[in-house]
Amino acid sequence: MSTPLRVTVWNEYRHERSSTHPASTIYPHGIHGALADYLGAQPGLAARTATLDEPQHGLAEEVLAQTDVLTWWGHAAHDQVDDAIVARVQARVLDGMGLIVLHSGHFSKIFKRLMGTSCDLKWREGHDSERLWVIDPAHPIAAGLGECIEIAHEEMYGERFDIPAPEALVFVSWFSGGEVFRSGCCYTRGRGKIFYFRPGHESFPTYFNPEVLRVIANAVRWAAPTDGPQPVFGNVPPREGS
Amino acid sequence: MSTPLRVTVWNEYRHERSSTHPASTIYPHGIHGALADYLGAQPGLAARTATLDEPQHGLAEEVLAQTDVLTWWGHAAHDQVDDAIVARVQARVLDGMGLIVLHSGHFSKIFKRLMGTSCDLKWREGHDSERLWVIDPAHPIAAGLGECIEIAHEEMYGERFDIPAPEALVFVSWFSGGEVFRSGCCYTRGRGKIFYFRPGHESFPTYFNPEVLRVIANAVRWAAPTDGPQPVFGNVPPREGS
Amino acid sequence: MSTPLRVTVWNEYRHERSSTHPASTIYPHGIHGALADYLGAQPGLAARTATLDEPQHGLAEEVLAQTDVLTWWGHAAHDQVDDAIVARVQARVLDGMGLIVLHSGHFSKIFKRLMGTSCDLKWREGHDSERLWVIDPAHPIAAGLGECIEIAHEEMYGERFDIPAPEALVFVSWFSGGEVFRSGCCYTRGRGKIFYFRPGHESFPTYFNPEVLRVIANAVRWAAPTDGPQPVFGNVPPREGS
Amino acid sequence: MSTPLRVTVWNEYRHERSSTHPASTIYPHGIHGALADYLGAQPGLAARTATLDEPQHGLAEEVLAQTDVLTWWGHAAHDQVDDAIVARVQARVLDGMGLIVLHSGHFSKIFKRLMGTSCDLKWREGHDSERLWVIDPAHPIAAGLGECIEIAHEEMYGERFDIPAPEALVFVSWFSGGEVFRSGCCYTRGRGKIFYFRPGHESFPTYFNPEVLRVIANAVRWAAPTDGPQPVFGNVPPREGS
Repeated sequence: MSTPLRVTVWNEYRHERSSTHPASTIYPHGIHGALADYLGAQPGLAARTATLDEPQHGLAEEVLAQTDVLTWWGHAAHDQVDDAIVARVQARVLDGMGLIVLHSGHFSKIFKRLMGTSCDLKWREGHDSERLWVIDPAHPIAAGLGECIEIAHEEMYGERFDIPAPEALVFVSWFSGGEVFRSGCCYTRGRGKIFYFRPGHESFPTYFNPEVLRVIANAVRWAAPTDGPQPVFGNVPPREGS
Repeated sequence: MSTPLRVTVWNEYRHERSSTHPASTIYPHGIHGALADYLGAQPGLAARTATLDEPQHGLAEEVLAQTDVLTWWGHAAHDQVDDAIVARVQARVLDGMGLIVLHSGHFSKIFKRLMGTSCDLKWREGHDSERLWVIDPAHPIAAGLGECIEIAHEEMYGERFDIPAPEALVFVSWFSGGEVFRSGCCYTRGRGKIFYFRPGHESFPTYFNPEVLRVIANAVRWAAPTDGPQPVFGNVPPREGS
Repeated sequence: MSTPLRVTVWNEYRHERSSTHPASTIYPHGIHGALADYLGAQPGLAARTATLDEPQHGLAEEVLAQTDVLTWWGHAAHDQVDDAIVARVQARVLDGMGLIVLHSGHFSKIFKRLMGTSCDLKWREGHDSERLWVIDPAHPIAAGLGECIEIAHEEMYGERFDIPAPEALVFVSWFSGGEVFRSGCCYTRGRGKIFYFRPGHESFPTYFNPEVLRVIANAVRWAAPTDGPQPVFGNVPPREGS
Repeated sequence: MSTPLRVTVWNEYRHERSSTHPASTIYPHGIHGALADYLGAQPGLAARTATLDEPQHGLAEEVLAQTDVLTWWGHAAHDQVDDAIVARVQARVLDGMGLIVLHSGHFSKIFKRLMGTSCDLKWREGHDSERLWVIDPAHPIAAGLGECIEIAHEEMYGERFDIPAPEALVFVSWFSGGEVFRSGCCYTRGRGKIFYFRPGHESFPTYFNPEVLRVIANAVRWAAPTDGPQPVFGNVPPREGS
């Protein structure tokens, strides 16, 4: 395609601005900065950023209208996201915009609203290593990977993860502390595609891991809108008979 | 099991109280009355009713706590259902209560909240006949049926039905006016099971059709809570290592 | 991608060579000819053909090795397809080759082997019209379509279609005679993607219908191999511990 | 129900008859003996056994006709199972008989035939412990369990497990050596339900573990035939029109 796929990288951007938080050192330009730098450098992708403390959280109608795929990272301030903006993002997803929900975004208003469940899970900030096994090697989100991704230090997320059964399950994580997790989950809501991807605790440099980044880029391409039919809803005349 | 399965039949109960509406003649005791009469007469089931205009819509905490499966019919007054009650029903579903959503209940707050989509569709009040084909003959909701259910007069609902892809698709409807519809859709949300069943326009005696009633009773049994594990969420210690 | 996607269009090619059969007039170069002409003219696709009566049915090892996506049309001579060739095609699908199974190919050895079921259905050669409704407008196979595809004359296929529940259901057909059918079904088997597409009776010019052709081209692109991990099977050493 | 559910426990029964094999000590009456003893003692279940070296492998037509659910354990002699018997079992599954495939039965002819894939996996006989996490606490197969099942010593099976994506994923296993595995997988084929359950290496007393046994009993009840419609296949007259 000649026109690039337009990605908006959304970030809560609070941890990174706290000088005492490890994230301020690991992600000096914010998690959104790291992700947008990478995604914007991929062929066929154009990336912009938006953060919580911008007006309208950086997600004005016209921004969403010009966004093909939105990525979402949030953690400590989910409840500060305005309900009207959440409704706007949901409407845009149902209309075809892709959504990539990252790590602690599992508890974001937008993800919970699109899933209909609590999206709760087990967690532990400790000394876990994580190994993400590719469960579905045919899935385009697994392109270019080996059989698993090893991450030396990550926060643990463990099952039961209270989500609807994913339409495709691309990754399952193994944690050294004894847990498993469905860490790559695909959904369709309306005309929009959604991918939840587990890794990415703010205290670790996970978003510089080349395989993690490759997955996110793959997911962005997978979640790109298609020009399928725009459904007509409401009262309709019969197609047959008189 | 010796203790009966406790069903609460919820109904908006507005059309039937309007003396000029056909529903007042077809369902003199309300749609809930017809359904509760049938369900309460089935072996192993006990039925009670609840309606919109009762205090708390008849869905006090203690009622829900004593409900194994809730059936839901609403149409003209979805927006009059209190958001706090909707949240209460959702929490109870996630905790294991079954939910059977009937016909125009597709647009109820509780169904939309659990699905995460618009739940919109095509519709027509005309001269359609409906034939529900059994797509999944192995499913317990299809027990005791023939290959299809014929309904001489029904409102038409047509695709695109904006729902998540069902985990099991039990029925697909054919309409004489030229449309099709996924008319029997199974979901799991949290520990609760959900079944959407299409037929049941208030101006037709659909809820006296023995096969339609059989499906609803089957669905109630299928959606009954199981004593699976109660997930533990939140911070947990490691199971391995020191 | 600069290298084209290599499609092999396989056809039984018997009806079209019978001068008394309507197919001989409708498809003077065979169904494979019509499909290969169309597919080969699409940007990024290269098409070749193979037929039953060629040596090895035209599916020598080296042909399959150079095939990214195989399309399959058969009807009257399924049992003349050599079991060894079927096993070869199955192995190639599991290794990543896409497979598009068309119409009466539902009863082919290869489709039955990949599904594990009888793949039986209802059918009628009569005066039916067919309307394929798009059920999943977000799916790439529905790109460029309207809400439904109308086909004035087609053979009827009706449920129950004895297949595993598809991973994605893209189309459901309405037939004027009263039946419905899951007419666009996606599967993954091993690293290969499979799409079953219903229309295409040999006595009708269905494979000149632009929307039907668009679906097949979309399906070919969707089923293209990805460079996901090549799984390692068998005995493996531990990744953890000593 | 007053009539018991009839379970046939099939076993290869070779390891246990080899006096030098640990299985001869652990399962002196064979794995089938242990399973049939347990299942036959459950309320509403009646169990019989069948083994490879009996005539027709113990699976005569009349045995299968009187079997509601068949359990299958095999390992070293899959290729000695007669293809005609495999076809017979497949036909009976498609007609409604439940099938529970245990552990190394993943490589049985019947499982591979019903799945359509290689059913290959990673494995290791070492010093692994296994923890099966319940992923779907609402599923009837998880009834009566805690959040996970711990098995101190088991053979490891690791992903990629080359199966179709299960319709429901009930368990995912964690192994101490670093792997994960989809260890409880539900399928429907025809009118029959299939459950694959991972644990059960012949050198360990896994089939005396109360939670493992509970899962197998739950699965037998879940896989019981329902009296859904018997599909009519083949040429049919129209239901509409003249």
